[in-house]
Amino acid sequence: MIGATLARPLQAGTAAVGEFIDEFFAERLERAARHGDDYVRLWESARDGAAGGKRIRPELVLAAHAAYAGSSTTEAVRLAAAFELLHTAFLMHDDVIDHDLVRRGAPNVAGRFALESIDRGLPADWAHEYGEASAILAGDLLISGALRVVAELEAPRAVRRAVLEIVDECVFLAAAGEHADVRHAVRHAGDAPGERDILAMIENKTASYSFSAPLQAGAMLGGASAASVARLGEIGRHLGVAFQLRDDVLGVYGSVEVTGKSALSDLREGKETLLIAYAREHPDWAQAAAGFGTPELDDAEAARLRSAIESSGARERVERLIDERCAAAVDAITGSDLPQGLHEALTLTARACVERAR
Amino acid sequence: MIGATLARPLQAGTAAVGEFIDEFFAERLERAARHGDDYVRLWESARDGAAGGKRIRPELVLAAHAAYAGSSTTEAVRLAAAFELLHTAFLMHDDVIDHDLVRRGAPNVAGRFALESIDRGLPADWAHEYGEASAILAGDLLISGALRVVAELEAPRAVRRAVLEIVDECVFLAAAGEHADVRHAVRHAGDAPGERDILAMIENKTASYSFSAPLQAGAMLGGASAASVARLGEIGRHLGVAFQLRDDVLGVYGSVEVTGKSALSDLREGKETLLIAYAREHPDWAQAAAGFGTPELDDAEAARLRSAIESSGARERVERLIDERCAAAVDAITGSDLPQGLHEALTLTARACVERAR
Repeated sequence: MIGATLARPLQAGTAAVGEFIDEFFAERLERAARHGDDYVRLWESARDGAAGGKRIRPELVLAAHAAYAGSSTTEAVRLAAAFELLHTAFLMHDDVIDHDLVRRGAPNVAGRFALESIDRGLPADWAHEYGEASAILAGDLLISGALRVVAELEAPRAVRRAVLEIVDECVFLAAAGEHADVRHAVRHAGDAPGERDILAMIENKTASYSFSAPLQAGAMLGGASAASVARLGEIGRHLGVAFQLRDDVLGVYGSVEVTGKSALSDLREGKETLLIAYAREHPDWAQAAAGFGTPELDDAEAARLRSAIESSGARERVERLIDERCAAAVDAITGSDLPQGLHEALTLTARACVERAR
Repeated sequence: MIGATLARPLQAGTAAVGEFIDEFFAERLERAARHGDDYVRLWESARDGAAGGKRIRPELVLAAHAAYAGSSTTEAVRLAAAFELLHTAFLMHDDVIDHDLVRRGAPNVAGRFALESIDRGLPADWAHEYGEASAILAGDLLISGALRVVAELEAPRAVRRAVLEIVDECVFLAAAGEHADVRHAVRHAGDAPGERDILAMIENKTASYSFSAPLQAGAMLGGASAASVARLGEIGRHLGVAFQLRDDVLGVYGSVEVTGKSALSDLREGKETLLIAYAREHPDWAQAAAGFGTPELDDAEAARLRSAIESSGARERVERLIDERCAAAVDAITGSDLPQGLHEALTLTARACVERAR
């Protein structure tokens, strides 16, 4: 796993990120108490939403920063935490958009407020409205909070502005990717997205804010040159695409032990991944596709879909693309003047993308 | 109207705010073009969402800033624009929470994407999903954009941090107010909010981010002392509460010429204002209340509700409260060392709150 790959040399750093995030929420919870129990519960659910992730983005920030600055600093920890807060906000708003009430196996912000309201005897539709409103507001609070943390970094003016630009740009790209993702889902009646649409969506939605932006922002804060920062953007883009494609393959072929979710859920949801876009080009797909995107899809139908994806050559094409993007990442790493430690960490990350539970 | 009261001496400033907002969107639209037509349309609808408001908040920022700094500056214009962007974001998310598709007489972000999708032949429920997702993302982009503008202000470090804190705190309070407002709406089955709940909600949702925070942030950037900034917070709180209570009265008793909306809409929506909370305490209300909160409410039922609000004494109590809050604002203005220009502008604003289309 990516997290585990990078975590080893950086545990002290990520522990500090966790402490900063704890302090961030503790301070807000204290202020929220002046505004009643429900607002305290909103902040508690936001805090819990920020817990339990793999903290990939903070690790990338810290790794990139330390590679240039020589060692980790309080400011790098703050920047790393800001990325985690932003990530949490995006998850919350994604969940509202998808009407999901569960995240990481537990009720999310919307789920908690909906359940509490139902317990208080409110009708289910009102309870859901209150839940979703709560999650929209929690996400807004974390976006504002994350930007404030970045804005308050102690760094030379030009560096602080450049880091801010990277963060705002990654919000810009993540929104573009999410908007395209929703459109794809809405369209899947007939007008399914093609390879180009899906790769653009992945670059924006995942590669930018999960890989490129954390690497670039960390390096920028650590004093990297503009050329190195641009190179890290390119490396992050390749790694992010490879990571997401691997995730998509695992979503269909992985085991619950590796992915933490059933290998039926993406198929039931009708997730328009590149795997599916490729499979659609082949006649085998049409014969097996009836159950795709239906909540009732059973194991036998899923097996038929999986074998149609295999026989169409879609799985192999996606695996080839993962190999290519990882090779491109390794080329970009090799041909760069990245500091040695970062060089190694990113090469390991690329390898993990290819191999992760293959 | 508040806008008109403050606008006269400040037209040049608000024109500059408009120009900055135009540039903000033009730059983003140019970048959005790299990500396809739908993302361009998202930014166009965000831009149009920021147009047509009364620009009260920017005016307050500029008035407070100029009173201390002597004249308006580019930085004050940027800060004023940031408040308008933030306000636009809040309106967008409020509309999602309320499932409103129209704002200022035209389709809002959600409405535009929903209508376009229906035109393309998508089912209405999918079109609405896409519309709401679009509005959530547009609001996120403007929150991030607004905070970035504030973070990039050219000001001494301590001033910039203090302004950032005011802005982040006003997001914190606006979210608390909106969360309480949604809860009140959800609860109105039996457990209606009381005077204390409603006044707290107004202080957070309206008074803070529409009055106190713009005045405080503008003054802070203009070099005001901590004592003056605190005093402006108090004045803004009183003015904001008076303004909102006046708005609530106009929502029930005003004409469409003054308010721009039908005097039936608040009653049809079942808006839990202080007017209604007071009326509920009186037996006349129960007899007239059947139509309250029903979309079918007709003129005759509305007339019965209005007369129950009158005979219960609720309207008079709210009018008295408006007078009291305006008097408190004037007292706070008079007992302060605010610069002369601001002194006058705020006194006029207080008077306008009391008198506006009474």
